Amino acid sequence: MARRPVLEFWYEFASTYSYLSAMRIEDLAAAAGVEIRWRPFLLGPIFAAQGWNSSPFNLFPAKGRYMWRDMEREAARLGLPCKRPDPFPQNSLVAARVALVGADQSWGPAFTKGVYTREFGHGRSIAEPQAVQAVLTELGLDADAVLKASTADPIKTRLRALTEEARSRGLFGAPSFVTDDGELFWGNDRLEQAIAWAAGDRPTGLR
Amino acid sequence: MARRPVLEFWYEFASTYSYLSAMRIEDLAAAAGVEIRWRPFLLGPIFAAQGWNSSPFNLFPAKGRYMWRDMEREAARLGLPCKRPDPFPQNSLVAARVALVGADQSWGPAFTKGVYTREFGHGRSIAEPQAVQAVLTELGLDADAVLKASTADPIKTRLRALTEEARSRGLFGAPSFVTDDGELFWGNDRLEQAIAWAAGDRPTGLR
Repeated sequence: MARRPVLEFWYEFASTYSYLSAMRIEDLAAAAGVEIRWRPFLLGPIFAAQGWNSSPFNLFPAKGRYMWRDMEREAARLGLPCKRPDPFPQNSLVAARVALVGADQSWGPAFTKGVYTREFGHGRSIAEPQAVQAVLTELGLDADAVLKASTADPIKTRLRALTEEARSRGLFGAPSFVTDDGELFWGNDRLEQAIAWAAGDRPTGLR
Repeated sequence: MARRPVLEFWYEFASTYSYLSAMRIEDLAAAAGVEIRWRPFLLGPIFAAQGWNSSPFNLFPAKGRYMWRDMEREAARLGLPCKRPDPFPQNSLVAARVALVGADQSWGPAFTKGVYTREFGHGRSIAEPQAVQAVLTELGLDADAVLKASTADPIKTRLRALTEEARSRGLFGAPSFVTDDGELFWGNDRLEQAIAWAAGDRPTGLR
């Protein structure tokens, strides 16, 4: 039997448009017969390397004002709730580590969607361990055990390695999607095309 | 008779994604019964105000590498030629001034599409008056007369005023689209939604 095509979904919990992709990617991938690999990473170190000490949506106010309105429109179009958390961006370290614990477990995608819905659907904090714990508890998991695992060295090391892998592979924002053959797509606006590419449907005449 | 809805199309001749919108906007607008106002402007002063002295695609190399690949894919998908001009970005001042001369004339859209096709379809220079002259001549226009008009004070002043208007209305990139009721859309990826909004088709549940 042929192996199913794989698409890597690279996301950062502080990223607004990653929320829209996280909520949509499973249905789109299933319809196309594509397998998703969930790849939480941190944009902070990548932004810092190009001289940014916060979200570009804060550093460039006109772009930030636009983004929040665009998020409202896009969420409405997709039938998703949308509320801005304060502060923005949220510190995403605890959630990213926990998502890595879940990356190879059946609850991983549900956890990721739960964090995003709390953060950008309901405008609540995700920064504190207690907030992440609440998401885990809602999923019926042993929150204490998962949080403890998330602060162990293997997870910390793996998150640093994934973030460095993202940078070295040319990722500069989130969400990003990488196909089996190394094709990179950036942004929720490219999710459909990334899945089509992974499934073998590419524009004709492309070099 | 009801007035047709209007959509302003703000574009910068150095902007790659503006090329894709310029080539598509007339057909989409006609199908939706929307009237397009062509608004050439300069991004340089807006970028400079936020500390950028070149295109963000040059300042942030990973983003630039991605953009050129994305342009190839998008152009292939839309059936448009795509070739990178050298240098990038091209100095767009002469072309923008001439486009303003044509903004209220029947040849304006054809000139804009001619410049973009030369620049990003065929990878040729648009910076020198001779290059712009060639586009005008291909359209059967009196190139010398148009170029002379483009360097007169009213056009210079109008281009500065449009660029300042863009900044003051919150534009931060190109292409941008602004509806009758002031709704701003940014990027070729939002062209369809901008036209739908202008035509009265808006997401339900939006505040």
